[in-house]
Amino acid sequence: MKKIRIAIAGYGNLGRGVESAVAQSADMELVGVFTRRDPASLHTKTGVPVCKMEEVPEKASGIDVMILCGGSANDLPAQTPELAKYCNVIDSFDTHAKIPEHFANVDKAARESDHLAIISVGWDPGLFSLNRCYGQAVLPQGKDYTFWGKGVSQGHSDAVRRIPGVKDARQYTIPVDEALTQVRQGKTPDLTTRQKHTRECFVVAEEGADTAAIETAIKTMPNYFDEYDTTIHFISQEELDRDHKGIPHGGVVFRSGVTGLEGENHHVVEYKLTLDSNPEFTASVLTAYARAAFRLGQQGQTGCRTVLDIAPGLLHPQGPEELRKNLL
Amino acid sequence: MKKIRIAIAGYGNLGRGVESAVAQSADMELVGVFTRRDPASLHTKTGVPVCKMEEVPEKASGIDVMILCGGSANDLPAQTPELAKYCNVIDSFDTHAKIPEHFANVDKAARESDHLAIISVGWDPGLFSLNRCYGQAVLPQGKDYTFWGKGVSQGHSDAVRRIPGVKDARQYTIPVDEALTQVRQGKTPDLTTRQKHTRECFVVAEEGADTAAIETAIKTMPNYFDEYDTTIHFISQEELDRDHKGIPHGGVVFRSGVTGLEGENHHVVEYKLTLDSNPEFTASVLTAYARAAFRLGQQGQTGCRTVLDIAPGLLHPQGPEELRKNLL
Repeated sequence: MKKIRIAIAGYGNLGRGVESAVAQSADMELVGVFTRRDPASLHTKTGVPVCKMEEVPEKASGIDVMILCGGSANDLPAQTPELAKYCNVIDSFDTHAKIPEHFANVDKAARESDHLAIISVGWDPGLFSLNRCYGQAVLPQGKDYTFWGKGVSQGHSDAVRRIPGVKDARQYTIPVDEALTQVRQGKTPDLTTRQKHTRECFVVAEEGADTAAIETAIKTMPNYFDEYDTTIHFISQEELDRDHKGIPHGGVVFRSGVTGLEGENHHVVEYKLTLDSNPEFTASVLTAYARAAFRLGQQGQTGCRTVLDIAPGLLHPQGPEELRKNLL
Repeated sequence: MKKIRIAIAGYGNLGRGVESAVAQSADMELVGVFTRRDPASLHTKTGVPVCKMEEVPEKASGIDVMILCGGSANDLPAQTPELAKYCNVIDSFDTHAKIPEHFANVDKAARESDHLAIISVGWDPGLFSLNRCYGQAVLPQGKDYTFWGKGVSQGHSDAVRRIPGVKDARQYTIPVDEALTQVRQGKTPDLTTRQKHTRECFVVAEEGADTAAIETAIKTMPNYFDEYDTTIHFISQEELDRDHKGIPHGGVVFRSGVTGLEGENHHVVEYKLTLDSNPEFTASVLTAYARAAFRLGQQGQTGCRTVLDIAPGLLHPQGPEELRKNLL
C-alpha cells in the first residue's frame, strides 16, 4: 500500500512532535521539513530532508498533507491560507476568538485550489471541542465545565519572564480539586475564575533583584494573574532546569445534565487528558487528522473543515469494516 | 423552522427515554409510538398517539426518523431492516459479535429504499466505541481499557432470577478501584477478568429456600459469575424495591499510550460516564443521532452508518458556523 506522504512546516517542539508521531504511523511517511530558517542550520531527529519554505510550490506534488507547526499569533493566519494553495493542510490554530475569520480565509484558498484543509486541530481546540459538542448534543439540559492542567502555560510563563528582575520562569495552571469533586458528584455549581484554577510560578530572580516587588508584579498582573490565587516559589536556575524542563499539560471537560420528563435523572460525562508532553500529544492529534485530510482529499472534497466536521472513523488507520468489527 | 418528526418503535424503558429526550429537543417533535401490543392498552407519558406496528407503511410519510427501542436479541435483527424500507431508522443494536451481519442487512434494506440508517447507537456500543477510535488513532502506541459500572446488568440480574429458589434479584457490575488507579497513573497492566470487575448481587429468596445452594449456584455460574469475585446479599422484596429500583450504569474507557521517538512521554485519555438511568441516557444518545440521520437523509445519503461514520457536528442542533464560534 502506498503511504501517505506528510510534510512539516516549522520545526519547533510541535514539528518535532509530528516527526515522531509520523514514525509511529505505519501508513505514513515523512517526506520533508520546510523552514524559514537556513535549512543547513537544521538537523532533523530522523534525518528527513530540510527545505526552504519557498520550495513548497515546486515540491507540493510529492506531498499528500502538509502539517503546519507554526504559532497562532504570528505564523498561521497568513501561512495556512498561503500553503493551502499548494497542498492539503492541517493546522492547530488556537486563538478561539479568531477561528471564524481564519476558517473563512483558509476555506477560500483551499476551495480555489481544490485542496482540503483542517484547522484548529489539537486538544483545545480539538478533542475538548468534540467533547463539548457530544456532551451538549446528548444532554441538552445541562452545563459544561472545562478545567485545564495541571500543566505549563507558555503564555503565562512568558508574561512572568517579562517582569524586570526575572531571569527565567515557569508557570503551572492547576484545577481546584474541590471544584472538580463537586462537578464529578453531579453538582452544577457556578464557579468563578478563582474557584476553578490556581496558578503556581517557579521563578529564577536576577542577582540582587527585589523578590517582593516581583511577587507583587506577578500577583497583580491584569488578565494573567489578578483573578487567580497564585503561589510563587523563587528557585535557582539549576533547580528550574532540573525539575521544570518538561511541558506537561492536560485538563478535563465535563457535561453534567439531566434526563426524564421532570429532569429527575442526572448524568455526568467526563473527558480527561493527562499529558507528559503537550506539544507531542498535540502533534499526535494533528497527525491522526492528517489521515482524515488525505482521505477526504482522495474523495475529491475541498475547502476547510474543523474537527466537528470529521467522522471519527476517518482518523483511524483501519477501514470501516474492520472498525465495525473491532471497535464498536 | 420545521421540526424533525420523530417516531418510536417499542415503548419500554428505552422508548419512554426517547419520549422525554425528544421533549428536551426544541428542534424535534414526537409524532407517534408504534407497538406490537394493543395500542389501546398503552398510555404514553406525554399523550403522543399510539399506533399498531403494521401501520408504519401508511404513516411513514409523516415520519422523518424512526427510533427503534426494541431488544437486540429478539427484536432488532428483523425489525431494523424491515422498518428501514419505510423510513430513516436508528437502533441501539448491541450484540457486538453480530454487528457486521446486522450492518449488512440494514445497509441493503436502506439502500434499496433510499433511506438512511444508523445502528448500534448508545454508549457501548456508541460513545465508548468513539472514544476507543479517537484514542487508538491519536495514540497508536498504547493500550485500551474499558471498565463498566458501577451499574445494573440486566442480563446478570435475569440469570440470577432463573436460579431455583430465587424470587427476585438485582446484579451490579463494579470496576475494581485498584485497577482503575493503576491505569489512571499511566501504568499499563495486563488485567484478568477478575482483576477488572467484581459483581454484587441483591437476592430475594423464596420462603424456605436453601440460600447456601443459591449462593453456590450464583458464584459457580459459567460465563456469568465463575470468573469474578461475587458478593451476595439476601434481602427482602421490600428492601429490593426500595433501594434497588433504579437502573444506574456507567463506565470508563481509557487509552494509555506513549509518544516520542523513544516512547519517552506517556499520556492517558480517560472517558467516564456516571449515569443515573442507563435507558434514559441511551435514549438521549439515540435522539442526538436521529438529528444526524435526518440531516444526512436531507443530503440524499442512503444506506447504513454507525457512530464511527458520523461527524460530531451533525448531532448538535446548532449549525456549523455557530459551532465553530461557540464550541471550538
